[in-house]
Amino acid sequence: MRQSELFGKTLREDPKDEIAANARLLERAGFVYKTMAGAYDYLPLGFRVLEKINAVIRQEMEAIGGQELLLTALQPKERWMKSGRWDTLAEIMYRFKDHSGREVGLAATHEEPLAEIATRSIFSHKDLPIAVYQIQTKFRDEPRAKSGLIRGREFLMKDLYSFHRDERDLERFYAKADQAYQKVFKRAGLEFFVTEASGGTFTKQFTHEYQVLSDAGEDHILYCPRCRYAQNQEITTMRLGTKCPKCGKAAIQAGKAVEVGNIFKLGTKFSSAFGLAYADERGERKPVWMGSYGIGPGRLMATIVEANHDGRGIVWPEAVAPYRAHLIEIRSVMQKVKSQAETLYKKLLARRVEVLYDDRDEKSAGEKFADADLIGIPWRAVISEKTIAKKGVEVKRRSEEKSSVVSVEKLLKMVTTK
Amino acid sequence: MRQSELFGKTLREDPKDEIAANARLLERAGFVYKTMAGAYDYLPLGFRVLEKINAVIRQEMEAIGGQELLLTALQPKERWMKSGRWDTLAEIMYRFKDHSGREVGLAATHEEPLAEIATRSIFSHKDLPIAVYQIQTKFRDEPRAKSGLIRGREFLMKDLYSFHRDERDLERFYAKADQAYQKVFKRAGLEFFVTEASGGTFTKQFTHEYQVLSDAGEDHILYCPRCRYAQNQEITTMRLGTKCPKCGKAAIQAGKAVEVGNIFKLGTKFSSAFGLAYADERGERKPVWMGSYGIGPGRLMATIVEANHDGRGIVWPEAVAPYRAHLIEIRSVMQKVKSQAETLYKKLLARRVEVLYDDRDEKSAGEKFADADLIGIPWRAVISEKTIAKKGVEVKRRSEEKSSVVSVEKLLKMVTTK
Repeated sequence: MRQSELFGKTLREDPKDEIAANARLLERAGFVYKTMAGAYDYLPLGFRVLEKINAVIRQEMEAIGGQELLLTALQPKERWMKSGRWDTLAEIMYRFKDHSGREVGLAATHEEPLAEIATRSIFSHKDLPIAVYQIQTKFRDEPRAKSGLIRGREFLMKDLYSFHRDERDLERFYAKADQAYQKVFKRAGLEFFVTEASGGTFTKQFTHEYQVLSDAGEDHILYCPRCRYAQNQEITTMRLGTKCPKCGKAAIQAGKAVEVGNIFKLGTKFSSAFGLAYADERGERKPVWMGSYGIGPGRLMATIVEANHDGRGIVWPEAVAPYRAHLIEIRSVMQKVKSQAETLYKKLLARRVEVLYDDRDEKSAGEKFADADLIGIPWRAVISEKTIAKKGVEVKRRSEEKSSVVSVEKLLKMVTTK
Repeated sequence: MRQSELFGKTLREDPKDEIAANARLLERAGFVYKTMAGAYDYLPLGFRVLEKINAVIRQEMEAIGGQELLLTALQPKERWMKSGRWDTLAEIMYRFKDHSGREVGLAATHEEPLAEIATRSIFSHKDLPIAVYQIQTKFRDEPRAKSGLIRGREFLMKDLYSFHRDERDLERFYAKADQAYQKVFKRAGLEFFVTEASGGTFTKQFTHEYQVLSDAGEDHILYCPRCRYAQNQEITTMRLGTKCPKCGKAAIQAGKAVEVGNIFKLGTKFSSAFGLAYADERGERKPVWMGSYGIGPGRLMATIVEANHDGRGIVWPEAVAPYRAHLIEIRSVMQKVKSQAETLYKKLLARRVEVLYDDRDEKSAGEKFADADLIGIPWRAVISEKTIAKKGVEVKRRSEEKSSVVSVEKLLKMVTTK
């Protein structure tokens, strides 16, 4: 992509109304646009990161047998009356009447539709277990939306729902989902704590949250830095500074954290409400056990930014970077600078390297370097009069300070090696 | 995919409340679920078709330089007051107050956000032309939603917006977009008329609609069957049975049609409302010219079904079929039937053929054939006692009546040849 043609430009200054680093950097670097508090537009750079994150999520969900589908945001009131959540979710669910006077709401989660739809798919024990997921836009009428892309009024959610014949089978799948979730967050370059939390009214067992320590977080966790045992402050009896009750080898610490995902045993609450049952081997009808598993791709992007930035901008992990290489041409009266940069751009494209090419004529070297640091693409390659004199390309990783001049062949090797 | 594990089953009977063939067939075959009139969930089979359609659209939009992004559905009232459409779209825009009392709406289209966002990207004539697009969920409070997936209250839309320095450049791009649209619909296997229609309050010139003749359509067009000149009935002065005013070689016909896409010159209406201007070569500020270009992927899917079905079910065109091959194992006491079917399934997967494998033990041959016809995958391959005796596989195209028994190697060749 030629940067001269990219939709979305960097801003010279931080947006004034953003407190959170994620929104400040993502907006300033041209990844997102703020339509209103808690509702962000993804510009082409941001959309690319989102698609990278979604690709990782899809791979791991397919690996545990998840089948992708796409449900509606619009929800009829009657459906949510069945589970009782038309009332209990009143605080966060946007709802309104259509022109015919019918009451509808916007889904903040999708247990109800899935439990209803599954009654057309699950009849016998042979139809179980089964798991479906979607990456879909949720709406929540959040009173506070101050954390940038971390807490949204409108946000993408990957939500997976699993269906089982009994609690044991649910637990077996739950453990698989936990492993899949850990893979997603590792691939996204995050350090996280698998954190025990309350199951609320659903289950007396713990649920699990994937928490990333960050000042931008809205959760508080207590954790052992040694064995990584962690609990959400809301349920824990652990105390700061006391010995870890699991390993006994380190003192418990506390910190603010972002919940980037959670997994949840729903039991039979929704299947009972919607008559979702199966016939076992003896023909006896039994309620289906359900689990639900969520990751917010936009929140994940924001958390990656919180965990990977410095004073100059974002430092994207390779797996989710919008481009792998940022090629910069330093303007010069020497025709050779532009022609060599153009040639290298084409070589990179030919090797299928995802490259953003800063071909802008009106920008100085300083402006281009500042933009490159702000945008945060992992590899930076510079062509200038100086590099031409040295018969090479200056290459530098965004995560390192040192640059070096290497041959074009060497550069191509560096950026194509995983 | 093993059909025994597929989420979404075929229904024995047509859903009672559907008049339109598209919804009747898509719901009965397990592609969609109806949450409410005008709001359909895409189950895994339907989601696969949607993704195929979206992939075609993305390719053609990228080919004309479209950059993908993703905008919010939630819209602040103030933004739409600027263009005057908070009032003029009142009939179809869902709107409500959030808990803080702020008025918001759900976007039925995205000219306003794009014109506003583009003020951060377009400053100089060097920033033009530029085009962006999204595949995003729109909401419209439709009074009637009787045509299945053709007219939705919630529906996916591919909307592209282009920005230009003057009318001439807009017209140049408009012609390119027209070609891209024609490619999309041809690849989707549709016969369509590029139909002149009114530009409403935006332009005195015609806009263009891509109309597919169908009884399920809500538009009426007049067209020449010879040179394919067509106009929407709302604007035309042509009369049924008179000579075509373009070619003079055939009599004008009339028919109901589905509008699967449209392209539109917006002029400077939105750029003026949002102060979207650029500096020309002499530094003079001028308003940006805009165009918008829409395709509804869900409506396109529905129209493909309207145009490609018979008494037994859907007949998917290859480019958008959920799977390329439907492998059917006819239950038998002969162990060899299952083992050969399993072997063939693995061979197909190894060759990267997208295959749905009907491995269900409890279904009869008749039920499996009926389901295969209903679902409508282009190639059907059957393994039974009979085919084993003949040392082959029975192969049949969904679009043809004749089947034949061929060797496994021949079958693999048939389904991997485009």
